[in-house]
Amino acid sequence: MVGAENEGSGIQSWVPVPEGSDFPIVNLPYGVIRRADGATSIAVAIGDHVLDLGIVQRAGLLGAVPALPPDAMSRSSLNGLMAAGPVTWRATRRAVTELLRADRRVSTSERVVLEAALLRRDDVELLLPFEVADYVDFYSSLHHARNVGRILRPGEEPLPPNWRSLPMAYHGRAGTVVVGGCVVPRPHGQYAADDGTPRFLPSRMVDFELEVGFVIGTGSARGAPIETSQAANHVFGLVLVNDWSARDIQAFEYRPLGPFLGKSFATSISPWVVTLDAIQPFVGPSQAQDPPVAPYLRCDEPWRLDVTLEVAIASRAMCERGHAPHVVCTTSAANLYWTIPQQLAHATVNGASTRTGDLFASGTVSGPERGSWGSLLELTWGGTRAIELPTGEQRAFLEDGDTVVMRGRCEANDRIRIGFGELVGTIGAAPSAAGASVD
Amino acid sequence: MVGAENEGSGIQSWVPVPEGSDFPIVNLPYGVIRRADGATSIAVAIGDHVLDLGIVQRAGLLGAVPALPPDAMSRSSLNGLMAAGPVTWRATRRAVTELLRADRRVSTSERVVLEAALLRRDDVELLLPFEVADYVDFYSSLHHARNVGRILRPGEEPLPPNWRSLPMAYHGRAGTVVVGGCVVPRPHGQYAADDGTPRFLPSRMVDFELEVGFVIGTGSARGAPIETSQAANHVFGLVLVNDWSARDIQAFEYRPLGPFLGKSFATSISPWVVTLDAIQPFVGPSQAQDPPVAPYLRCDEPWRLDVTLEVAIASRAMCERGHAPHVVCTTSAANLYWTIPQQLAHATVNGASTRTGDLFASGTVSGPERGSWGSLLELTWGGTRAIELPTGEQRAFLEDGDTVVMRGRCEANDRIRIGFGELVGTIGAAPSAAGASVD
Repeated sequence: MVGAENEGSGIQSWVPVPEGSDFPIVNLPYGVIRRADGATSIAVAIGDHVLDLGIVQRAGLLGAVPALPPDAMSRSSLNGLMAAGPVTWRATRRAVTELLRADRRVSTSERVVLEAALLRRDDVELLLPFEVADYVDFYSSLHHARNVGRILRPGEEPLPPNWRSLPMAYHGRAGTVVVGGCVVPRPHGQYAADDGTPRFLPSRMVDFELEVGFVIGTGSARGAPIETSQAANHVFGLVLVNDWSARDIQAFEYRPLGPFLGKSFATSISPWVVTLDAIQPFVGPSQAQDPPVAPYLRCDEPWRLDVTLEVAIASRAMCERGHAPHVVCTTSAANLYWTIPQQLAHATVNGASTRTGDLFASGTVSGPERGSWGSLLELTWGGTRAIELPTGEQRAFLEDGDTVVMRGRCEANDRIRIGFGELVGTIGAAPSAAGASVD
Repeated sequence: MVGAENEGSGIQSWVPVPEGSDFPIVNLPYGVIRRADGATSIAVAIGDHVLDLGIVQRAGLLGAVPALPPDAMSRSSLNGLMAAGPVTWRATRRAVTELLRADRRVSTSERVVLEAALLRRDDVELLLPFEVADYVDFYSSLHHARNVGRILRPGEEPLPPNWRSLPMAYHGRAGTVVVGGCVVPRPHGQYAADDGTPRFLPSRMVDFELEVGFVIGTGSARGAPIETSQAANHVFGLVLVNDWSARDIQAFEYRPLGPFLGKSFATSISPWVVTLDAIQPFVGPSQAQDPPVAPYLRCDEPWRLDVTLEVAIASRAMCERGHAPHVVCTTSAANLYWTIPQQLAHATVNGASTRTGDLFASGTVSGPERGSWGSLLELTWGGTRAIELPTGEQRAFLEDGDTVVMRGRCEANDRIRIGFGELVGTIGAAPSAAGASVD
């Protein structure tokens, strides 16, 4: 990763940061908050608090950040900040870090502003952090692609023949990307009933997909592919992604045009966008690729993301009985075969442009062992090996009222932890609309 | 189609409309223009002229159109007008029609405004008419789907097994939808070379796809499917679509996730959006469907679009020698098996929302005979039967410098003609970028 700043790990903040918090001062992920009075603005997370940067910017406390629009922090999306480019991102991060450092002298007037801007995270609503322009979903985990092949096409070579030649992907629906915390009603759709005939019913195979996504800050022009060495100048940050999938609808529709309604009902992203700069200390050398990739996909810089990821499920009964969500998957983004610069180079090598707010997700992240597989399709092997919850309930796929919690964090021995917060979503009952009557 | 107004066919305009023009007063398609002085605004086409509605609205000549934003016509996209809803669309159309009628008394002050607002179409630049939110491409022509199956999967059943159960579709790249008139450089990509090994090269199989698209004016909420009877309250109008396709790149990448880079380099749309109201007299009873469709896809209203479509090609040599573009395909949107209300009901039946600016394209429109097939893939049967141009040049797929011209029109015996204008695009040479070096 080029040009990222290592903020060091010894900095302390005057805002208390509980041990094990996802949000120490070296993280400072960006989100969009709605205050109790209804006002929206951009904020960073710090410990159990958020700092309202709208208030901070209006009071002049950010100083002169080059190319930052004067109202950027008072908007209801990150797009203005993201479009301003990497010099602005770094200067903003430096200015916010300065304001939050414990060893900084604060004037009385600054203190008044900062106290007004510091809110308990529980007291604000977290909104969709950016307007999604286009949404592309990759298929970049070797273990996931191989598992899916084995489950859906048994007896055939599990990996698509060109899987190692290029980072496969498809376009998803940008307009149905929602922020974590939403209820996702069970979708209706057509699929083959037990007797093999097409039926229109609520899906019986609603699944999660654990993914990591990145969002474009600075777009690129049509006809100007983004070379792998330039990725860090375009990528603003990372989010957790839950690419909800209705497996029965997907299986019925995906040949030959790929996934459509089996995915487009909702895609959830985490409310906090972790910047590339924050994650830089946790980036390692990319894994070797065999066979060698085409020149446009070569990348000498380290881009392996050492982000530990986990998925936990809580049924309604578990919530009622006070059980914590039950962890069903622990894995790492380091398992991904294709890196961010490769994904971006591939997606633009045909001359396609990118825009501020373009979301690129990794595809399901799965590791080699069962406990590291990032979807129920894999964890229950197509629904044939149910998971048992602490209440004794069995799960092949998600039931109404099930809550899925995804978490991501970077940590190493004595180094400070950087987290993504939680990405939460609950499956709701299928709506009983007139158009949705059972055939 | 519910509630559309038949404006009648006997109205004349004081603006001269040449015989055979696509743009009589009963059409009045909307577009976005850039004047010679750089100012942009919304306009309607009339004969060989355009009427700048920004000037008209600012002078108060539109009168009190309900819910029309006071600056809607001075914006650089139709999205504001489109979002205002069908009552506003009708009232605006009525107001503009009144201003252009030959039999209307015009005051001196009105005449001054209208003369300033009336511009020769050749004197303005036509911009992308709306900001595309999501872009969905269907596969709704039976003849096209069957031809593609026969060409790509010979010996197998050509039609995907569920093709008649649902209108198949995939999401395309909204950010690379461009307005007609743009040069589209030949894309690079990976595909199997003659010896079968993956290579990274400029595409050798660049194709057009003749399609008709519709654009959403009034969006719909998540969880609220659009019933077939409600389509006309959401659809603002229609455009011609050229879904450029690199067949070699597409063939290499499309299993199992569908088309990606083989399509995402560019999709061209016509500069003029023909409203549903204008096209209403040319809508006939929808074709019978066998087997019967699921209840949510049933639609009793007529939605067969009697739009004659054609594609013409002009090579660089043809242009130099003064040849007119050579017509290679004449077909009709009436050939489409799935209708607009069915496409919209299907795309939202899983609870997916829609937004102002969502573009839904039909997929390639092909009829039963060879001359009515809407892509070179079909017309040259996978490149095996070249087309001969008037210069004697042969074409299996598009060469650099080839211009593709698409046209659409509705006409019936003594009834007036409604046209879409031309959708023009020229294939440029592949860029020789560093990342695009041949492996």
